[in-house]
Amino acid sequence: MSDPRLTPLAASLPAKVPFVGPEAQERTRGRRFAARLGANESVFGPSPRAVQAMADAARDTWMYGDPESHDLRHALAAHHRIRPANVMVGPGIDGLLGLTVRLYCGPGTPVVSSAGAYPTFDYHVAGFGAAMHKVPYREDAEDPEALIATAAEVGARLIYIANPDNPMGTWHDAATVSRMIDAVPDGALLLLDEAYVEFAPEGMAPPIDPDDPRVLRFRTFSKAYGLAGARVGYVIGAAEQITAYDKVRDHFGMSRVSQAGALAALADAEWLAHVQAEVAATRERIAAIGRACGLTPLPSATNFVTLDCGADGAFARAVLAALTERDVFVRKPFAPPEDRCIRISCGTPADLDLLERALPEALAAAREGAAAT
Amino acid sequence: MSDPRLTPLAASLPAKVPFVGPEAQERTRGRRFAARLGANESVFGPSPRAVQAMADAARDTWMYGDPESHDLRHALAAHHRIRPANVMVGPGIDGLLGLTVRLYCGPGTPVVSSAGAYPTFDYHVAGFGAAMHKVPYREDAEDPEALIATAAEVGARLIYIANPDNPMGTWHDAATVSRMIDAVPDGALLLLDEAYVEFAPEGMAPPIDPDDPRVLRFRTFSKAYGLAGARVGYVIGAAEQITAYDKVRDHFGMSRVSQAGALAALADAEWLAHVQAEVAATRERIAAIGRACGLTPLPSATNFVTLDCGADGAFARAVLAALTERDVFVRKPFAPPEDRCIRISCGTPADLDLLERALPEALAAAREGAAAT
Repeated sequence: MSDPRLTPLAASLPAKVPFVGPEAQERTRGRRFAARLGANESVFGPSPRAVQAMADAARDTWMYGDPESHDLRHALAAHHRIRPANVMVGPGIDGLLGLTVRLYCGPGTPVVSSAGAYPTFDYHVAGFGAAMHKVPYREDAEDPEALIATAAEVGARLIYIANPDNPMGTWHDAATVSRMIDAVPDGALLLLDEAYVEFAPEGMAPPIDPDDPRVLRFRTFSKAYGLAGARVGYVIGAAEQITAYDKVRDHFGMSRVSQAGALAALADAEWLAHVQAEVAATRERIAAIGRACGLTPLPSATNFVTLDCGADGAFARAVLAALTERDVFVRKPFAPPEDRCIRISCGTPADLDLLERALPEALAAAREGAAAT
Repeated sequence: MSDPRLTPLAASLPAKVPFVGPEAQERTRGRRFAARLGANESVFGPSPRAVQAMADAARDTWMYGDPESHDLRHALAAHHRIRPANVMVGPGIDGLLGLTVRLYCGPGTPVVSSAGAYPTFDYHVAGFGAAMHKVPYREDAEDPEALIATAAEVGARLIYIANPDNPMGTWHDAATVSRMIDAVPDGALLLLDEAYVEFAPEGMAPPIDPDDPRVLRFRTFSKAYGLAGARVGYVIGAAEQITAYDKVRDHFGMSRVSQAGALAALADAEWLAHVQAEVAATRERIAAIGRACGLTPLPSATNFVTLDCGADGAFARAVLAALTERDVFVRKPFAPPEDRCIRISCGTPADLDLLERALPEALAAAREGAAAT
């Protein structure tokens, strides 16, 4: 029996993580992964200037971090040519999405997302008892028109879309996203998750109109800036929506070291360009490795490539299991029909050498398994 | 008008920080503080081994931190001779208190704390719409019997007490706390905030009975371990209560660098002993500085000393303002009659030299101000 002191909502929630971490898998397996290609982390690492800034800040970490993240917030405002009042820094997009759901959703509040989209958003929606309405992907991309239509139909408070998309890597152009913003129904708020925006083609993201109250845009230092372990994200929006985070956030919750790292990373445009070039080249190599095995790489505007394994979800799961056995950590989409794919993060040349050896073996093993059943 | 998309609860909440950070005060003043004695941070710093571990981990921060905080959780379990299932690591006691209120309280749920106790707990209680019932301090200490009596009277779900107490520095002995735990009414849960426990007399904390479902004990690396800016706290409790955090926490929210720092800090018992000795000596010096000015130092089991300014809250506020003008950052209790005091964190010898010069001037300025009105 559940603890009777829990709220009815808390009692109803499962105690589980949206993703199992690679370290947990390693402990279960009793063996380390040789290639860590499952979490869309940046193997190219953070800027050396960010590493140095974090090392320097370590000595000062007896002090709480600035609860206003003043320097980082002002640097972000300058970077995006907006006002500091249009930016809130928080503990990663994950943390900011949680606060956003808390601000706008109570039990039963309708919310719209795509079936198979980012599960941590679903986790927060469930965590506050809101009612999720799912829209299918269309040709391996999220479907802006269907998301808007469903939002209008159910009276959604929040609409979630990632552009570029995770886990498929596909994207919509600026005109499409602008049309989507213009079509947000009254009473709804569009959450535009742009975690991978730095890897996308120039001009994919519509210009930032910071005073538009219909959309909140989420960005992160976890991907292109290589600071996933530092937990620094930010949200751009109209001042009134940004101020609302001060109602519920953990004001002293931003690590001092992480703030220093993000500030230095943002200033190092050269390193960002280096990572972008590495990612672009690595995507080509992953696609080639896939093609050489007869798989179809999806186009990607992210730091990963999703490979269509050409059969059903069970087959792709078998491929993934066989890669795991070969010490390659990857993940895959959860929902059919996108679950026929596996998702491979950009790795080092050594990581991809291993992938190149392991993938044909894994496919063979999966085919043998399929033939045997 | 408030954003109509906010939940009614969110719309009703003020957008404000429970404490203004010293950096924000510095920006308002246009001048840095010369002595940072207001946030009970550890000027003695973290263990050099923790600093090194954080600097080393900075390079690896392209990877998400382990969402299970496995190594740290297991080290804490060994340290306290309990099972890992009895410990949850989280982003500071602040973050863990927020999750705890979320798990156990909805709109109107009765909660009991002391008038003038830790305001961040109040912030979370208000943030989830719960109903706070306040009990006065008794002789400058929290009043366990009154807290329990009020909890029984109002049917409280949560009862909060800090031992040692912040902002007064006073404490209760193990027998008193054990009696309090035994008296927790059915349906209630005691939140025992032991942020300052490492500074308290040996034997002040009752032995940990990790399977007791009536109490959750909160500890932190922010105080004695000198890692306030790293955001690492933990809660000890029965396995069922600990598992409940997995329903709502931000699983990937723990900084990789911070986990590494806390793990190294926990292993350095020698540094902890050094800090404890420094704090004990510094408390004596703060008390002596206060006495030399005619103020009464309260006994302290923490890393700060609360000085009774001998008059009312307005006078103590004037003293605090005059210290601020003299570049000394301190804070003070909010609620009468405890607000007649100021609270001074242990500082470096240079910090206390400045305090020794500034305090008599600040008292004189406050007395002049009082005489003039």
